[in-house]
Amino acid sequence: MSQDDRKNRVTVDIYGQAYTIVGPESNSHMRHVASYVDEKMREISVHNPSLDVQRLAVLTAVNAVHEYMKIREDAEKLEQELQQKRTE
Amino acid sequence: MSQDDRKNRVTVDIYGQAYTIVGPESNSHMRHVASYVDEKMREISVHNPSLDVQRLAVLTAVNAVHEYMKIREDAEKLEQELQQKRTE
Repeated sequence: MSQDDRKNRVTVDIYGQAYTIVGPESNSHMRHVASYVDEKMREISVHNPSLDVQRLAVLTAVNAVHEYMKIREDAEKLEQELQQKRTE
Repeated sequence: MSQDDRKNRVTVDIYGQAYTIVGPESNSHMRHVASYVDEKMREISVHNPSLDVQRLAVLTAVNAVHEYMKIREDAEKLEQELQQKRTE
């Protein structure tokens, strides 16, 4: 998702600021993603109250990428297991 | 990963700023995650040169969470398929 000129456009609130996000996904998916990011930023700020918003947002991105890489690894393992089952 | 007092501690550079990230993961994993975030921020900034760093970081988090949700869905489907194969 980005701020370019693709299909759907939705304005969301993340950590008190408005963002217009644009993408081929449904508005409800984009709202869901935005509210997840908002929630994560609030969670991290509770544990790190001295962080400014920029650093908070970067650490939220770091956490999201970490979660993404973990689950991508899980998906790869499942895919391998499934390949084996298919050839059994 | 967070800025609390768990196992490993590594200082990384993301978009020209130093971040100390701490977590039970290996230093190489944490560096890998940081460099992915740095790369994504640079990619998004190329397409949105007027964004300030805070908004850039938030949109990077939005993209990472979107990727995370997509792959989580894939992993759930693979898991279901595997469950079916196990009971066949």
